Amino acid sequence: MRHTISVLVENKFGVLARIAGLFSGRGFNIETLNVGPNLDPKFSRINAVIVGDNNALDQCIKQLSKLINVIEIEDFSHGIPFVARELILLKIKVDKSQRAELIQICELFRAKIIDVSPHSMIVEITGNDSKIKAFLGLVEPFNILQMSRTGKVALSRRTASESD
Amino acid sequence: MRHTISVLVENKFGVLARIAGLFSGRGFNIETLNVGPNLDPKFSRINAVIVGDNNALDQCIKQLSKLINVIEIEDFSHGIPFVARELILLKIKVDKSQRAELIQICELFRAKIIDVSPHSMIVEITGNDSKIKAFLGLVEPFNILQMSRTGKVALSRRTASESD
Repeated sequence: MRHTISVLVENKFGVLARIAGLFSGRGFNIETLNVGPNLDPKFSRINAVIVGDNNALDQCIKQLSKLINVIEIEDFSHGIPFVARELILLKIKVDKSQRAELIQICELFRAKIIDVSPHSMIVEITGNDSKIKAFLGLVEPFNILQMSRTGKVALSRRTASESD
Repeated sequence: MRHTISVLVENKFGVLARIAGLFSGRGFNIETLNVGPNLDPKFSRINAVIVGDNNALDQCIKQLSKLINVIEIEDFSHGIPFVARELILLKIKVDKSQRAELIQICELFRAKIIDVSPHSMIVEITGNDSKIKAFLGLVEPFNILQMSRTGKVALSRRTASESD
């Protein structure tokens, strides 16, 4: 099963290495992960999509919550309503004859063309899982030279007294 | 100095923990980092923005390139032309009286409003450093409840015989 978790941590040396080590040490596959500073730069937020057995992952999240620099964990697998988005950059090989077709696909998905050279384009696409998947399916027949994806970021839709 | 690097790695257990450990063990601060699968799922791409002394970081990147699961490293600090983008989700506290103002700011920056509740909105913004910075400056007077950022992803503008 696939879990999307969001972890608020203190911005200290080695926290990321420790968290990544905890997951890999237990055989969980980190599908995507990202970490960036919070509003208060003393803290960072880690978003991760992790694949593994449900019970074992619950155990692992309990262990995570005991780490000294971990402030808060949200596991979006337990029915909490949330929004998730990802950003992907793709460098696609296109010559003159294919350019119009790629531009049309980008327009349909509101993907942005952010760089053009005689033989390639760099395209930026953002969205949820299903939009990203549909877009990748459509551009697959082109020659994709490079891809760089941010991994999902997620926020709960709840509006309780959250204050990080 | 701030370095943006992109590392192509084999998708094996523990690679991320080892790379994060290498940086933190040497006292480098990982400002943002993200990792996601490549087109060929045997590989993942890690993008990181790292802050530290130039010479020491060059040494560290050399060490990184010696790790067995590291295939390729691009350090965008050395004048390679590149594009970089980031995605941020913000949950902002707004009541009826402030909603119009926030919507206006979002329209100016082409930020998307992806969730609305009686007392808050979730906004998605993508862009380069300067756009993100300008947007955050404008929404700062609002009460920002939560923020989740992907960290930068980067691709070189070069169109040589790249093939990952």
